[in-house]
Amino acid sequence: MKEIVAFIRRHQLPATKKALEEAGFPALTIQSVEGRGRQKGIGGWAAEVDPELNKFTSTALQSMEPEIKWIPKRMLTIIVQDDQVSAAVDAIVAANKTGHIGDGKIFVCPLQEVVRVRTQERGCDAVI
Amino acid sequence: MKEIVAFIRRHQLPATKKALEEAGFPALTIQSVEGRGRQKGIGGWAAEVDPELNKFTSTALQSMEPEIKWIPKRMLTIIVQDDQVSAAVDAIVAANKTGHIGDGKIFVCPLQEVVRVRTQERGCDAVI
Amino acid sequence: MKEIVAFIRRHQLPATKKALEEAGFPALTIQSVEGRGRQKGIGGWAAEVDPELNKFTSTALQSMEPEIKWIPKRMLTIIVQDDQVSAAVDAIVAANKTGHIGDGKIFVCPLQEVVRVRTQERGCDAVI
Repeated sequence: MKEIVAFIRRHQLPATKKALEEAGFPALTIQSVEGRGRQKGIGGWAAEVDPELNKFTSTALQSMEPEIKWIPKRMLTIIVQDDQVSAAVDAIVAANKTGHIGDGKIFVCPLQEVVRVRTQERGCDAVI
Repeated sequence: MKEIVAFIRRHQLPATKKALEEAGFPALTIQSVEGRGRQKGIGGWAAEVDPELNKFTSTALQSMEPEIKWIPKRMLTIIVQDDQVSAAVDAIVAANKTGHIGDGKIFVCPLQEVVRVRTQERGCDAVI
Repeated sequence: MKEIVAFIRRHQLPATKKALEEAGFPALTIQSVEGRGRQKGIGGWAAEVDPELNKFTSTALQSMEPEIKWIPKRMLTIIVQDDQVSAAVDAIVAANKTGHIGDGKIFVCPLQEVVRVRTQERGCDAVI
């Protein structure tokens, strides 16, 4: 079993959900995160910046990093069998690839065990 | 060392915290996420759906997936020694198992290193 | 490749970003979490507790755990090459170590694959 974590643009979320569902992966978890890549948030992202995400940061602290833009992104997590990794990655790439900076990244992490709480099934049976 | 990640119902959070503390796991991290399982959010979840979590999604985008319900859940993360995995999993199952769809899932992930920032202790010493 | 996850004090975020950038790690992801360590949130944390994070918890549920303080923290995630782990960990420690409880923790997790969506580069090439 593997955990696939993808960071994508917020407005690509519906298309990504649809692509994953069509590829046989209806189960997923969504989180709101903010981040930046190697480009330090530069490159047409301004319209995506969400001031609400900075609500906990004081003006004084913000003034320490005036040149850096942090981008709100959506983080998706899905759990797949080992032989489903490339199908899931391909679905995410197809739904998010525009060729422009900010298309996102996908991480594949090892997973040792999965337990379905309702039935206490474990391993592959808990994922299916 | 292992990282245990559990997705549970929001209203089960206090009981789960209590069960983990009684089992010897007072340290944990909590995140708010939304997700759905293989059942695509169907099955008595309506009352749990939180419209606020969709605040970033435009009406136009929402109309692309009218039949799918996304469920706000709590995600707990705890770090344990290898021989504590089953005790922690059992505590989470005991606090969350109702036999109904939506009881949640638990993932066990390998962890290579842990560092306590205050003391720079590493490995098992940083977890204890 | 490794995933480094750090839990730090909220007000240390700007200094930590700066330290990571100066050490050659401009790319990172930030999440807001709440948690507590072995000390159960005791020890001068009161001023950091954010009541807004409890907005989903009913008063009745809160009264079940009156003695426990949950601390809002920032969770940072960065992806590095294997030989960059200690440089990144050192930068996070340097920016967050005060010697007081609550300085935070750092976790290093194995990562199997990374894909840059824009170019479909994989592995180390997708991280650089």
